[in-house]
Amino acid sequence: MMKNDYDALALDLHRKLKGKLSIIPKLEIKDQEDLSTVYTPGVGAVSKAISEDASLSWDLTSARQTIGIISNGSAVLGLGNIGAAASLPVMEGKALLLKQFAGVDAWPLVIDADSVDQMFEIIMAVAPNFGAINLEDIRAPECFELERRLIEHLDIAVMHDDQHGTAIVVLAGLINASKVVNKDINQSRVVILGAGAAGQAIARLIVEQYPDAEVLVVDREGIIYLGRPGLRFDKADLAKITNKRLIQGQAEVAIKGSDILIGVSGPGSITPDMVKTMADQAIIFALANPIPEIDPGLAKQAGAMVVATGRSDYPNQVNNALAFPGIFKGVLEYQIKRITSEHKLAAAREIASFIEDPDQDLIIPSVFQLDLVDRIAKAIGEIG
Amino acid sequence: MMKNDYDALALDLHRKLKGKLSIIPKLEIKDQEDLSTVYTPGVGAVSKAISEDASLSWDLTSARQTIGIISNGSAVLGLGNIGAAASLPVMEGKALLLKQFAGVDAWPLVIDADSVDQMFEIIMAVAPNFGAINLEDIRAPECFELERRLIEHLDIAVMHDDQHGTAIVVLAGLINASKVVNKDINQSRVVILGAGAAGQAIARLIVEQYPDAEVLVVDREGIIYLGRPGLRFDKADLAKITNKRLIQGQAEVAIKGSDILIGVSGPGSITPDMVKTMADQAIIFALANPIPEIDPGLAKQAGAMVVATGRSDYPNQVNNALAFPGIFKGVLEYQIKRITSEHKLAAAREIASFIEDPDQDLIIPSVFQLDLVDRIAKAIGEIG
Repeated sequence: MMKNDYDALALDLHRKLKGKLSIIPKLEIKDQEDLSTVYTPGVGAVSKAISEDASLSWDLTSARQTIGIISNGSAVLGLGNIGAAASLPVMEGKALLLKQFAGVDAWPLVIDADSVDQMFEIIMAVAPNFGAINLEDIRAPECFELERRLIEHLDIAVMHDDQHGTAIVVLAGLINASKVVNKDINQSRVVILGAGAAGQAIARLIVEQYPDAEVLVVDREGIIYLGRPGLRFDKADLAKITNKRLIQGQAEVAIKGSDILIGVSGPGSITPDMVKTMADQAIIFALANPIPEIDPGLAKQAGAMVVATGRSDYPNQVNNALAFPGIFKGVLEYQIKRITSEHKLAAAREIASFIEDPDQDLIIPSVFQLDLVDRIAKAIGEIG
Repeated sequence: MMKNDYDALALDLHRKLKGKLSIIPKLEIKDQEDLSTVYTPGVGAVSKAISEDASLSWDLTSARQTIGIISNGSAVLGLGNIGAAASLPVMEGKALLLKQFAGVDAWPLVIDADSVDQMFEIIMAVAPNFGAINLEDIRAPECFELERRLIEHLDIAVMHDDQHGTAIVVLAGLINASKVVNKDINQSRVVILGAGAAGQAIARLIVEQYPDAEVLVVDREGIIYLGRPGLRFDKADLAKITNKRLIQGQAEVAIKGSDILIGVSGPGSITPDMVKTMADQAIIFALANPIPEIDPGLAKQAGAMVVATGRSDYPNQVNNALAFPGIFKGVLEYQIKRITSEHKLAAAREIASFIEDPDQDLIIPSVFQLDLVDRIAKAIGEIG
């Protein structure tokens, strides 16, 4: 189906159902005695117990079994800054996926606020309602500082999925793509077109896993290098761990001779001529959605060996729904309070391991893959 | 059963279930096509529609079908200021009641904040997640200003249930009690012991419905009257509409000769000697929970004709679970944006109307009363 068909289907469905989530009690009140147990006076003893030992909220409330899907709607899909209320359907969708794929309760909380300070203050105040927080669709560079501050101050796990969910699935795909082309990523040049939330997280995770790879991140002004005049704080941080040879120039300079090209920018930013300058057996992830940076057919014609996109109607879909359900299931099940690089790398390796014999058109499993979520959760849990 | 038994039952139950609420999707994702409809790319069209016409969130999101049960845990049951996290079990209980009794989705949101300014700012920012807001267990006098400011600034209904839910049920009980004793409340003296959230709301609703009744509110320093030195802002407001004859003195002065005595204070604050000074056929609502201001048996021995309490093991339980499920059901069903005195009075009259032939021991229906919720919702809806 074409995208426009999904638009109409989605509008109809949402109107018919009035949204996608519902709340149900875990028990039924049948009589006055039940009522006195789940509500006053009995419930007072439960509240009192938590007031005396805060850790008991993990045993006694459903809140702590729930993932908060939190956004201010400042960077939604291809729509940009549409605000809190308009971002609700996306957040409800994410909560639905978490429940269906992972059996994990999740609840959307959109916040009508813009500044990092205000978002930080509000999320700190509502954190007791959740067992972990999935930040979603929050604009860069604000998302970086917000996530960092929350991780520092909260005793529950916080993950900005647009960054890390995407990075984990990209890494999983690269692990298998490198087997198809028989190259060592640690000896490859990896170019990332786009230095937004996803681009920066992908770069960091690749550097973490393959410290000897040459990772170059390109934004609108060219290749990011340490000391580039006017670098924003987040990109200056990124420059410290990428592009060790301080290569300067536009995208073409970075791409020439590169082994792996990852687009997280926009339609048309990768041309066939660029692809022709890449090393043999090139790997291209063109992740702009719904229209990739380059059409997969054109990319292959121009010499690419493995192509992945963000779309479900091409092979090799990079879909962060592959990662976050298992990760958050693991976080709750093993009461993980902080998601580290080790967790992310373990999740990526676990996702990659589902493809026993990777080929051009099969480097990433389907979100419907049996056991996917449970195995990711377990991989996370084993790290603890 | 004794209260202590419920304590143990409640703790066991909460531990076994890990809280009381769960989230379920309104539909199942069966294949990639479903996924593309409820999530990207289809969901983008839904978000875009809302970004272009904010009112569509009422048709397209479950958030707007959901009541937010919001508290900072500053005045929980008999426990006082136990904070946000410890208040969660109460809020989950309230959400459970709303779902079971009214079929209305509700979600708790506790907020770790204390000042009215901070609570106001945070609730304004999270309001897009809800179709209406039930403020709960927030300390007086902060609750008055917070509710007033939210009602003024939000385009969704806001009700502090500790105030208005209680007042509505009290009024319903008084309507029937006055029939039992065959008195006109408009010609009665009504004394309210306690000037907290519930006391003030009860006074206001009675004045609204019975403008000629003599309503006296008594706090720890005595009867509230206009001009009493050092009156806090909320009590000064209350003084403007009560105690028109500016009667001064302690509780005994107010109670002597009174027809109706409503305790919303604490155990022991009503003595048999006080009851003996009341007018014939006295009505007493002793609502402190779990231990009433006076034992119902003692009150009757001292001459009271009708006695109500907050407990389920005596006749005539004043339980705000009688009111809020129907009110919030009506609010959502008829998209009511502001709850007015007319709505509250209509709800009280509707609750009272369930008792066709009131007697001493039957002035208030049970929360399990058939049709209770639907008829309240309809009564609310007819006002619009």
